[in-house]
Amino acid sequence: MDLPTIQWTDKGIRIIDQTRLPRSRSYLILKSLSEIEEAIRSLRVRGAPAIGIAAAMGVAWHAGSGPENERERVLSLAREAIECLALTRPTAVNLFWALERMRILLEKVSGQSGPQIIAALRREALEILEEDRRVCRRIGQNGSALIPSRARILTHCNAGSLATADYGTALGVIYAAVEEGKHIEVFADETRPLLQGARLTAWELKERNIPVTLLCDSAAGSLLARGAVDCVITGADRIAANGDTANKVGTYPLSVLARKHGVPFYVAAPLSTVDLSLSSGDVIPIEERSPEEVTHMSGRPVAPEGIDVFNPAFDITPAENISAIITEAGIIRPPFLKGLSTALKQSKRKD
Amino acid sequence: MDLPTIQWTDKGIRIIDQTRLPRSRSYLILKSLSEIEEAIRSLRVRGAPAIGIAAAMGVAWHAGSGPENERERVLSLAREAIECLALTRPTAVNLFWALERMRILLEKVSGQSGPQIIAALRREALEILEEDRRVCRRIGQNGSALIPSRARILTHCNAGSLATADYGTALGVIYAAVEEGKHIEVFADETRPLLQGARLTAWELKERNIPVTLLCDSAAGSLLARGAVDCVITGADRIAANGDTANKVGTYPLSVLARKHGVPFYVAAPLSTVDLSLSSGDVIPIEERSPEEVTHMSGRPVAPEGIDVFNPAFDITPAENISAIITEAGIIRPPFLKGLSTALKQSKRKD
Repeated sequence: MDLPTIQWTDKGIRIIDQTRLPRSRSYLILKSLSEIEEAIRSLRVRGAPAIGIAAAMGVAWHAGSGPENERERVLSLAREAIECLALTRPTAVNLFWALERMRILLEKVSGQSGPQIIAALRREALEILEEDRRVCRRIGQNGSALIPSRARILTHCNAGSLATADYGTALGVIYAAVEEGKHIEVFADETRPLLQGARLTAWELKERNIPVTLLCDSAAGSLLARGAVDCVITGADRIAANGDTANKVGTYPLSVLARKHGVPFYVAAPLSTVDLSLSSGDVIPIEERSPEEVTHMSGRPVAPEGIDVFNPAFDITPAENISAIITEAGIIRPPFLKGLSTALKQSKRKD
Repeated sequence: MDLPTIQWTDKGIRIIDQTRLPRSRSYLILKSLSEIEEAIRSLRVRGAPAIGIAAAMGVAWHAGSGPENERERVLSLAREAIECLALTRPTAVNLFWALERMRILLEKVSGQSGPQIIAALRREALEILEEDRRVCRRIGQNGSALIPSRARILTHCNAGSLATADYGTALGVIYAAVEEGKHIEVFADETRPLLQGARLTAWELKERNIPVTLLCDSAAGSLLARGAVDCVITGADRIAANGDTANKVGTYPLSVLARKHGVPFYVAAPLSTVDLSLSSGDVIPIEERSPEEVTHMSGRPVAPEGIDVFNPAFDITPAENISAIITEAGIIRPPFLKGLSTALKQSKRKD
């Protein structure tokens, strides 16, 4: 199964509605900027690489949505989309990376005709998607070298097919290891509040017939203490220059526990997740989401009405807790400052 | 508000049904051994001290439930209740402690008439309840000495009024501190899978107008990393001779994080929670509960059907992560082996 998380169609941007999984596998066609914005904000499409792709497609789609494809109008629609979509979610840098690529391209082709600009934006968005496919497979292959022939792997949230074009980062490593014939068992943290682990990771792995055991986030400590985990692999939403990594809330506690129990802790992410402009994790903006994510389950209240809630969507794992960062350019070991900047320089040279 | 978690009435054992809080404050009258068993197994009454009280009352109630209170029949019903109730839940030692008290009393009065035995069992059960009231207030007063005049306290699960006769252990410390005029803000982990933090702790604190903020268990790491917590206080289900403590799953990760960030980690519990027969936490039996607690929310599935689940109800916090154990006999500091056995010897001498 290569699950198409997001596709370009003539009718709009087709996504699998991740808020309805695993109960229903339903697809949405996003036909307007506001629908694209809403889909990103509501996590119908989520995962750092996938929201980058969705945003790029959103710019291309919106640019071509005017009644006539007159050049000035196309440019203004594209710029409007870039501005709007940049405000949807603050933490995953892939969003800004993809929008910046679209902006740079837009400047380059701004002298062309409206239809030509639209076609160029569409090509760029599709290239971002195709790149993600290739990049995730390289991450998988690179990461698989770290995985023993028999391994029990703990993961948090969903960094799988559903978080990317179709293959995944953390789960991409697992998929590549399984493809190489390794015997992998996965432990999936349910990942409160939105249960991406229970709803998405457990579902993806089950669809692929990879053994998976679901657990509450707070039970991961028991697993690690019992020696039942060989390594931890998570994705990332933004990696600062020094290797500090923003990822789904709960990643930081997991990294502390892994370190305490001598279990390797790997982050798998494309280089587009690396933000060299931020020196450390302290300055990564952390999205705080609605209290209802915590106080309600399936629309029903599970807490006293009007209770105060602390609901950060992400936390920061300090570089010192990370054994290696698995990228398409290879496995980067500490000190990350050097490894990350070298990898990024080399990848830019290839472009 | 002193919330009566459990009461003896002529019609049966009256409990607040904790599975229905906070949506509904409804009471149940348990009228048979099987109803009492079910209530303990389903967590309608829960919390280590409260299930001890419920079990003791269950023995007294069942002993008097025969059609005639003939001596041999009363003895056999009491013994049946002791045996049955010992199988309801394995981890909290207060259950076995209370049943053992009932058994010892039963032996002592076994020569008396049926009605006299029933009356003696009832008096003992009510004495266990009354003792818990006094003990929790002493725990509160003792623990309050550890709390600064302004404090942000993180707690996990529910070790409050609802977990005891009416006052609480970890929350008893908070209640006592507030009664002494201290300015306390509480952070309550929601405590998956059964959300005792969201449903019970947040509700109790709100009822008492104590400021409380709810968070997902995995967000506690972010709070501690931000320096937003002055101390952590939890209850306990069983404390081994060396101080290793079984408590709700998620307590261990919290203790690791508290230690890492230099935040004191306190366990508040009556001496009836201490099990000197176990040398360390390694041998405390850990209850594993139904997968449905994790895979379903309010009866609706949130995970793929038939998924494997790891659902331990408790974990073990090693003594090295515990700054102090707050008991009715005072604050016990490491090394706990000596402090706990001395406190227990002194408390037995007083009996």
